[in-house]
Amino acid sequence: MTHGDVVSPSAGATVESDRSASPDFVQSLARGLSVIRAFDARRPRQSLSDVARNTGLTRATARRFLHTLVELGYVDTADSVFWLTPRVLDLGYSYLSALPLTDLAQPHLEKLSTRLGESSSVAVLDGADIVYVGRVQVRRIMTIGITIGTRFPAYATSMGRVLLAALPAEDLDAYLDATDLRALTPHGLAEEGALRAELSRVAEQGWCVVDQELEPGLRSVAAPVHDRGGAVRAALNVSTHAARYSPEQLHDELIPELLATARALSADLAIVNR
Amino acid sequence: MTHGDVVSPSAGATVESDRSASPDFVQSLARGLSVIRAFDARRPRQSLSDVARNTGLTRATARRFLHTLVELGYVDTADSVFWLTPRVLDLGYSYLSALPLTDLAQPHLEKLSTRLGESSSVAVLDGADIVYVGRVQVRRIMTIGITIGTRFPAYATSMGRVLLAALPAEDLDAYLDATDLRALTPHGLAEEGALRAELSRVAEQGWCVVDQELEPGLRSVAAPVHDRGGAVRAALNVSTHAARYSPEQLHDELIPELLATARALSADLAIVNR
Repeated sequence: MTHGDVVSPSAGATVESDRSASPDFVQSLARGLSVIRAFDARRPRQSLSDVARNTGLTRATARRFLHTLVELGYVDTADSVFWLTPRVLDLGYSYLSALPLTDLAQPHLEKLSTRLGESSSVAVLDGADIVYVGRVQVRRIMTIGITIGTRFPAYATSMGRVLLAALPAEDLDAYLDATDLRALTPHGLAEEGALRAELSRVAEQGWCVVDQELEPGLRSVAAPVHDRGGAVRAALNVSTHAARYSPEQLHDELIPELLATARALSADLAIVNR
Repeated sequence: MTHGDVVSPSAGATVESDRSASPDFVQSLARGLSVIRAFDARRPRQSLSDVARNTGLTRATARRFLHTLVELGYVDTADSVFWLTPRVLDLGYSYLSALPLTDLAQPHLEKLSTRLGESSSVAVLDGADIVYVGRVQVRRIMTIGITIGTRFPAYATSMGRVLLAALPAEDLDAYLDATDLRALTPHGLAEEGALRAELSRVAEQGWCVVDQELEPGLRSVAAPVHDRGGAVRAALNVSTHAARYSPEQLHDELIPELLATARALSADLAIVNR
């Protein structure tokens, strides 16, 4: 999987309006998808005015898109309020069901999580973010829930650093140019030189520890999953409460198990790779 | 949540073309979403010709939609082959992150699965299907992997029967009129009268067992999750290998735990219900 065009997700709106000049660009599709994305945890139920404001569309335009999404079954409405239906999961699920990685990873994640008593995940890089595509959660550690589809900035996560460490030099440069590195906790690494040095170390040692940089109390270790050609296709991680494993125990107990699982999953992937 | 308009998922294409006559219907959005849905596990990577054939669009039209989806980052392409990117997960995730149910259910599912050593799930009804919106998988039982977004015909599953049993009479009639009941295993219940009788029993007793009707060897038990007003909002289940629990053990050991968890989740839901 190549993601050479590293863009900040928040730049999407501007980029879209630039592209709308092309005669091949279907503006209606872009607008309709922006209406779906306008609904989120903070705004699960919206009026027509809300949707218009949140998408930048006129009320008349927003109304036509909402009407179409209601007709297609992706949106439901009552009393002038709109919300998404479970049918939108079909759009994301078509991706997941097309991804042999998710299916192959599941039994490996289950075994690893059962053996260690800790949650484990698989993620891929999408632009500047990691996106979870497989997960077995044993215990909730983080304050926000992680499900398939959850995103985090790549630089602040163990899986993200494993994936960044595998990028071609020019893609890493583009990523660092486009990304505003910010420490998310007092432990956070947010200086470009220090991050580059850490990524070199990760590439060399074949695993990455992130210690309370994404959230206080959270310690995570990740390793790469390779395809048959040796390219890094995904990252696998185990996350734990800092109180449950010291950095030394993490190194001696978790990392060997993690690496064995990453090798087993890579071997499975090599078999199905066409 | 009301889903009065029960339609067979496969009827979608016809319905869409009927609706396209309305001046408020944005045909381009419907077509673009059909392009996203054209990619699935059997067809994860497609040429332009494949997409045109699978969506019924002309090559020129399919090309414009694919181009737009590539520009927006939902599709990637190389060597004249197209595939979905993880960005499509944003479309489904916006639904999930807007659903307090998923977030509230997760710790309950984890506790239940840890205590029983069995996988547990939460699903809602969408048209004729149940859709998984939360899941803790302890061990893989079924031949196909279940993730958030997975669908099954409601009548053949324990969660589906709990949800069907709670439908108003006219919605259940519409569902049964529109649905082709077919036994999926030799144990399958596929006769309308027998299904209606079973749904009455489920409504009365407050739980449902489905024994090897969805897949041989799979035994599942489900209970309703209520909102503050007492309406059934979702179903919660525990699934197990037939060899691990006899029907009697299921009844004596699993059902009490399941019902306690469903009550606890319903109580949480009542608190956040606005």
